[in-house]
Amino acid sequence: MAWEDRRGVYNFNPGPAALPEEVLRRAQEELPSYGGGGLSVLEMSHRSKAYDEIQARAELGLRRLLGIPDSHRVLFLQGGASLQFAMVPLNFIPEGGAAGYVVTGSWAEKAYQEADKVGCRAVVAASTKEEGYRRIPSWTEVQADAAWAYVHITTNNTIVGSQWQDLRHSLSIPLVADMSSDICSRPVRVEDFHLIYAGAQKNIGPAGVTVVIVREDWLAQAEEIAKARKLPTMLRYAVHAKNDSRYNTPPVFAVYLVALVAEWTLEQGGLTAMEARNREKAALVYGAIDESDGFYQGVIDPPSRSWMNATFRIADAEVKKRFLEEAKEQGFIGLNGHRSVGGIRVSMYNAVPVEACAKLRTFMDDFRRRYR
Amino acid sequence: MAWEDRRGVYNFNPGPAALPEEVLRRAQEELPSYGGGGLSVLEMSHRSKAYDEIQARAELGLRRLLGIPDSHRVLFLQGGASLQFAMVPLNFIPEGGAAGYVVTGSWAEKAYQEADKVGCRAVVAASTKEEGYRRIPSWTEVQADAAWAYVHITTNNTIVGSQWQDLRHSLSIPLVADMSSDICSRPVRVEDFHLIYAGAQKNIGPAGVTVVIVREDWLAQAEEIAKARKLPTMLRYAVHAKNDSRYNTPPVFAVYLVALVAEWTLEQGGLTAMEARNREKAALVYGAIDESDGFYQGVIDPPSRSWMNATFRIADAEVKKRFLEEAKEQGFIGLNGHRSVGGIRVSMYNAVPVEACAKLRTFMDDFRRRYR
Ligand SMILES: Cc1ncc(COP(=O)(O)O)c(C=O)c1O
Ligand SMILES: Cc1ncc(COP(=O)(O)O)c(C=O)c1O
Ligand SMILES: [Mg+2]
Ligand SMILES: [Mg+2]
Ligand SMILES: [Mg+2]
Ligand SMILES: [Mg+2]
Repeated sequence: MAWEDRRGVYNFNPGPAALPEEVLRRAQEELPSYGGGGLSVLEMSHRSKAYDEIQARAELGLRRLLGIPDSHRVLFLQGGASLQFAMVPLNFIPEGGAAGYVVTGSWAEKAYQEADKVGCRAVVAASTKEEGYRRIPSWTEVQADAAWAYVHITTNNTIVGSQWQDLRHSLSIPLVADMSSDICSRPVRVEDFHLIYAGAQKNIGPAGVTVVIVREDWLAQAEEIAKARKLPTMLRYAVHAKNDSRYNTPPVFAVYLVALVAEWTLEQGGLTAMEARNREKAALVYGAIDESDGFYQGVIDPPSRSWMNATFRIADAEVKKRFLEEAKEQGFIGLNGHRSVGGIRVSMYNAVPVEACAKLRTFMDDFRRRYR
Repeated sequence: MAWEDRRGVYNFNPGPAALPEEVLRRAQEELPSYGGGGLSVLEMSHRSKAYDEIQARAELGLRRLLGIPDSHRVLFLQGGASLQFAMVPLNFIPEGGAAGYVVTGSWAEKAYQEADKVGCRAVVAASTKEEGYRRIPSWTEVQADAAWAYVHITTNNTIVGSQWQDLRHSLSIPLVADMSSDICSRPVRVEDFHLIYAGAQKNIGPAGVTVVIVREDWLAQAEEIAKARKLPTMLRYAVHAKNDSRYNTPPVFAVYLVALVAEWTLEQGGLTAMEARNREKAALVYGAIDESDGFYQGVIDPPSRSWMNATFRIADAEVKKRFLEEAKEQGFIGLNGHRSVGGIRVSMYNAVPVEACAKLRTFMDDFRRRYR
């Protein structure tokens, strides 16, 4: 049986990433027939009652988890976070306007560059690029101009391995956040953001659906700006909001999995429980780094470290190669650092069990003793 | 067991639509672990060897089925056919240029309108709107201007229920086709098209992935035009082609299902076998209409009828209501006509078995006898 193949396999993929085993079991069981209706979710009309229920479950699950207030809409879109990099400026920066970007890693920089690429004025509001992205700036370093349409941040920098710890800001202009790699990993005050977006494939589902949480009273502006720019219909937030994310055929199966993952997360105790678990997992991996006497070299300054993606280096290239080989032999998957930076990256999103991090810690300690 | 729920259920959904039962069984079996690797396709990196294989299987399956020549690239995108409505003109109509649209139904009209909406010049090359879309025009009716970037057609009109029977054209300018609702339903000469697109959710997979087949030598132009227009990166065909459909995270599970469906279709005997089966299915349903002495009124002129979506009306509104109620009770799903046109629509894509159409025919004959 295929389930047995999974024993001894530890999925540290950076995204698409591990899903909770309970969710996979449920998806498998329900695959031929959802709710006794005799149809798979994969072959279900997006205008059917069954799918109405599925999308409502996904939305409600996210609303409960994140405490999303009624002031904010929840949209399920396609195109990944990469399409959001273009949609955000095109919908919210009016002709002649500008927006500020806090550049804390490669994805943050891509968001900044895309705004420029599509002809909008993007300004660096703060950047730690010169410091090799080793830290997250403090809010006092963020130079916001009152005339900007918004400030954009990336709450977790998936590649370099840093994360905003303090999201309480006092900006007087709208805040937009790419939360692709840490949404639902800890409690967050959604009311402090005008727009949050996240590709689902790390913490809340499979690849193929993008969650957007947006203040409804911001959409009227977006509609005007989108019209003036002659934006494609599919790139207009106001259209998706008006059509309840069904202007065209949504990725129904991916939305179904978001529902299952959100419900699983609630059953685990919600985001407070997730935060505790994620701290525990991060403590295991960072412990192995910090107690290695420099054998494992953490990339990020400790106060800015991510609980989702821990990054480190091993000085000797041969030893590093050996580390990745042995790790692979022992069932640890996905530890190679991103091709743009090298090194080692441990992605431990919500669905990665504490046990996997404990096993990895044991391996890291053992490896260090043998190779130091 | 959930499989039993499916007995006596006949899925005539217009899209997302029926998938072959063999494909669903395979997807269920492999859900926990693909290829013995201990990971679900749902949690697999798009940069992994396993996913390289999956995407290659999907592409090869489509190449074999459709006989796609080396001159054409195969891309797996997001956003549905609706995003293609914008991408096609934005990438291929240069500043100051124009393109022609053959308007044969609501989707064809939407494609035409979207080109205009995004600021491109779209011209009607032929239209049967005045005739209630009851027929497909002949090629001699298509007025193509040599200066146009392309002519756009919709090979199957999902809502009204008409289909191009003769795709052999003698246009001297590029032909672009929306094949969302009849791709892979019959053999087609791909070399006669510069670009073909299709949302997967009818004949080739689940919702959430869009297949684009495009002549490679046309992409250099698209790159220039996209750059001049400052198009979002995600809307540039050349970018997706250069990155082998992995500029960003693709919908991996949806692509996997395209691979399974393409392989299933090959096993059934490929597109010649599909055509024969689809003719047989269509003959059953249209037979019920044509032998009903006007009780069932076909919407489309017989030479333009679709093998994929058969549409008809029942004159008496009460009887029509009763028809839909009884059909539902007997397990026939998805027969309501599109909300924009009403009536009855039988969507019988590749995965709908002949048996389902035979059962429906029996029901239609019986119902007519009782209610005429
Ligand atoms: C923080 C962040 N933003 C954006 C992206 C790009 O996401 P997608 O592949 O969904 O476009 C990623 C992908 O890893 C990410 O981690
Ligand atoms: C012929 C045709 N074109 C386009 C579309 C729109 O497709 P999507 O929902 O994938 O955007 C449809 C949907 O049914 C269709 O049948
Ligand atoms: Mg990064
Ligand atoms: Mg889907
Ligand atoms: Mg139509
Ligand atoms: Mg997927």
